[in-house]
Amino acid sequence: MNKQLARKSAKDTNTIVQIGDVQIGGREIVLIAGPCAIESEEQLITSGNHLKQSGVSILRASAFKPRTSPYSFQGLGIEGLKMHQKAQKEHGLLTTTEVMDVRLVDIASEHVDMLWIGARNMQNFDLLKEIGKSKKPVILKRASSATVEEWIQSAEYIMAHGNPNVILCERGIRTFETSTRYTLDLGAVAVAKLLTHLPIIVDPSHAAGRPDIIAALCKAAIAIGADGVIVEAHPNPKESVCDAAQALSLEEFHQIAEELRPIAQSVGRRLKC
Amino acid sequence: MNKQLARKSAKDTNTIVQIGDVQIGGREIVLIAGPCAIESEEQLITSGNHLKQSGVSILRASAFKPRTSPYSFQGLGIEGLKMHQKAQKEHGLLTTTEVMDVRLVDIASEHVDMLWIGARNMQNFDLLKEIGKSKKPVILKRASSATVEEWIQSAEYIMAHGNPNVILCERGIRTFETSTRYTLDLGAVAVAKLLTHLPIIVDPSHAAGRPDIIAALCKAAIAIGADGVIVEAHPNPKESVCDAAQALSLEEFHQIAEELRPIAQSVGRRLKC
Amino acid sequence: MNKQLARKSAKDTNTIVQIGDVQIGGREIVLIAGPCAIESEEQLITSGNHLKQSGVSILRASAFKPRTSPYSFQGLGIEGLKMHQKAQKEHGLLTTTEVMDVRLVDIASEHVDMLWIGARNMQNFDLLKEIGKSKKPVILKRASSATVEEWIQSAEYIMAHGNPNVILCERGIRTFETSTRYTLDLGAVAVAKLLTHLPIIVDPSHAAGRPDIIAALCKAAIAIGADGVIVEAHPNPKESVCDAAQALSLEEFHQIAEELRPIAQSVGRRLKC
Amino acid sequence: MNKQLARKSAKDTNTIVQIGDVQIGGREIVLIAGPCAIESEEQLITSGNHLKQSGVSILRASAFKPRTSPYSFQGLGIEGLKMHQKAQKEHGLLTTTEVMDVRLVDIASEHVDMLWIGARNMQNFDLLKEIGKSKKPVILKRASSATVEEWIQSAEYIMAHGNPNVILCERGIRTFETSTRYTLDLGAVAVAKLLTHLPIIVDPSHAAGRPDIIAALCKAAIAIGADGVIVEAHPNPKESVCDAAQALSLEEFHQIAEELRPIAQSVGRRLKC
Repeated sequence: MNKQLARKSAKDTNTIVQIGDVQIGGREIVLIAGPCAIESEEQLITSGNHLKQSGVSILRASAFKPRTSPYSFQGLGIEGLKMHQKAQKEHGLLTTTEVMDVRLVDIASEHVDMLWIGARNMQNFDLLKEIGKSKKPVILKRASSATVEEWIQSAEYIMAHGNPNVILCERGIRTFETSTRYTLDLGAVAVAKLLTHLPIIVDPSHAAGRPDIIAALCKAAIAIGADGVIVEAHPNPKESVCDAAQALSLEEFHQIAEELRPIAQSVGRRLKC
Repeated sequence: MNKQLARKSAKDTNTIVQIGDVQIGGREIVLIAGPCAIESEEQLITSGNHLKQSGVSILRASAFKPRTSPYSFQGLGIEGLKMHQKAQKEHGLLTTTEVMDVRLVDIASEHVDMLWIGARNMQNFDLLKEIGKSKKPVILKRASSATVEEWIQSAEYIMAHGNPNVILCERGIRTFETSTRYTLDLGAVAVAKLLTHLPIIVDPSHAAGRPDIIAALCKAAIAIGADGVIVEAHPNPKESVCDAAQALSLEEFHQIAEELRPIAQSVGRRLKC
Repeated sequence: MNKQLARKSAKDTNTIVQIGDVQIGGREIVLIAGPCAIESEEQLITSGNHLKQSGVSILRASAFKPRTSPYSFQGLGIEGLKMHQKAQKEHGLLTTTEVMDVRLVDIASEHVDMLWIGARNMQNFDLLKEIGKSKKPVILKRASSATVEEWIQSAEYIMAHGNPNVILCERGIRTFETSTRYTLDLGAVAVAKLLTHLPIIVDPSHAAGRPDIIAALCKAAIAIGADGVIVEAHPNPKESVCDAAQALSLEEFHQIAEELRPIAQSVGRRLKC
Repeated sequence: MNKQLARKSAKDTNTIVQIGDVQIGGREIVLIAGPCAIESEEQLITSGNHLKQSGVSILRASAFKPRTSPYSFQGLGIEGLKMHQKAQKEHGLLTTTEVMDVRLVDIASEHVDMLWIGARNMQNFDLLKEIGKSKKPVILKRASSATVEEWIQSAEYIMAHGNPNVILCERGIRTFETSTRYTLDLGAVAVAKLLTHLPIIVDPSHAAGRPDIIAALCKAAIAIGADGVIVEAHPNPKESVCDAAQALSLEEFHQIAEELRPIAQSVGRRLKC
């Protein structure tokens, strides 16, 4: 018997994931932003303080980095988690970080308010099960070659193991087109909204792999019905230890956030003041 | 020596294609709609009269249909062109139709206000050259496996042969995802806007292959900066001779058009009253 | 009523296309080779004389070149066709060339023994119809985004208009992989062999876009059941006016042809002595 | 400093992975076959005894199954590992199984002769590191959306953590084509052979998702230079608990193995007697 907890048929209303005083999936469009990787406590405090002024609710930053090459920077690890938690006392935003290793789900959960599962781990089923048991709010990124059905089935894994606090995230699929790093599949967001009651956010940074179309992709994401966006923004993009090519400066992000306000209103949503 | 007429570098301002009193590429978002195929004069008059009330400027309908199977309906041909022209006297909208055969460019140009080149013919270079010589305003659909660069190079063919009145149209690319017929690549619209001064419109109907996400795709298209949309709408979708699965009714289209108005305003554009 | 002339169900035996004394689809694996574009009569004679020694039956060379940019070399046109025919008197091989323009089907048919339809024109339905009427043996290349079903339906167009002499050709599909220009889909050859009685050949040159894996792709093509290969080989690859990156020298091709002989035998086929 | 242990530049000769008395990457083409999932000790003994007669060296069978849905059969787990080891005493073949969870690398290594990393875990970097430390021979399947470069970089992770016994496995990539479940990218095998000294095998079963082209794909794999194939074969395919659609019967596999013998010889290789 398939329970299919993630499907529209399982619930009368759309799921709102509550994290502290922030609701994802409600009327408010949630802005999540921050640097690719945790580099220092100061970097996180600077980022958090600026992004707070732009209406951001949740600071993203990775302590563990999935890198194609074993010789690329792999993240600060547990030291990074501690920095994330300490910086939070200064900037006051909620926090999120990626978890990749089943053995680190507990410790990561203790240091941040929300986890995320990266695209490469969308079908790391043991990780899905472990996060299912943890109950921690979690963003589930769509794998770059996953169908919408497979993406929702991965959410089902987390829910079937006890965790209803799943937020789906579209971040681009692999296609032949090379002008963007991945092809952002906004149609998949529209389709997924018909199939599931879970909140859906969009990551334009990893999809684009370039900063100059991120504003446009954010606008389209909100217009199509996404519940939020997750964007890479760095105090000094050129010196970012990773993904420097796609990161926005904090000032550029501020400008984009302002441009999103009228779009949100035009579809009956709002941004945080 | 590469002239690269289609590139931003060739002109200081964006191109506005003027067709009668309609401008594509200006402040106004242009709505193009109509049935997949021309079936009768009455069908065109009914469609045109309704769609006019929804702010549509240009009636689309095919006399020549590119069909995967030789045994599917191939269109009414030149008789269809004549119907398109006669119906226009009743409804008063501008008209557009697809041309596939180099030998029919002239006769098609005589019967409609704008041509379009379908995705399957984006690299039918002899057709591009022939339409280049004709000077007729033309929509150039992106092939389902064309890169943004190849799409712009196909526009360059038309322009290099003398016709500057080219409108690019994104209509979805082939990917592994099967919940939509093609994957609408809105990121490509954003990238193309950085590379070319030509107007760009979006065809959500062929990309989606299903009616229930067309409103969402139209909203995203306008939010990302498209200059218009081209949508299949039929007086009686279930009886459409082709593409019945994706066509909207005229009433459904009217509802969508109303929803697009605030989006257009939120990005500093407007729809026709 | 669907006739489905191209399907296995339409015939008890596999089709053998006879061109002069060459059979495509019989026990013999047919080698087709030659330069990308016709450059001169001398180039064709040199190529033909060498390739003949390597077991090649048919000399390929284009008079009309489909090029992404309008400013790239477009081919020698009808002059090129004449060269192809004149050179044939010297080298004695059969000849084939690409035709793109419906208006040139007749003249091309007069100058060569076999036509081919390039990948970009696989769904140029007017061209398919015109070649259908011509009865000329024709290679139908699979479009880079066509499914196996669509490919066979395009063959059906040619056959439905009267021409049974169709040879399918797999030449790579568009995928995310960038180490080859296209991804050669040999599985599609195996599937198509189950669906159609038509001969199927493979073009490794356009798929690979690099010379160093062409031998390997030819071997795999023959092992999987292809009836022949069509390969770009040029008297002086570095000076080829197009596709220089992928062309083999005539000597390199000779070496490859020798390596194919045992593979052909291992699957119960043979190469021309 | 990038060590790039997996690259041709790192070694003068190709790597041969030795497992018991079997060499992968040497002159002999290695046949790996067996059921999708471990169902019982009897199933493994029957499979092993039959497959041994067909020249198979290594019995594949999964104790842990990566399944899209959490409600599908997840495998017999550690009980399955024990069955694999016990059955080996009867049939005498070497054994291999998939490992997905970093916490199970050690126990899996104790029960089988070789591990494999499934396509979904190709970029589960913590798993790569853990298997790197284990030194156990391991098959690394290419993710369905991984480039050749990313695939080799994942091998580099395993090698950089101390394990040189890596065998690459191509098992199909995600494309738009639906007649096969994935598109087997044999060109990638040819390219990878130019880049790395590691052995490369091919999995036609998961690529095809259908039994009727597996013989053809195996032939092409060997012709293109693969060092072996890994094929799903089951004593009773219709009753297989998973992947029933693509499994061959043991008799069908035997027939295919016979057909591969002359192909191997034609490229200077041999199958086990």
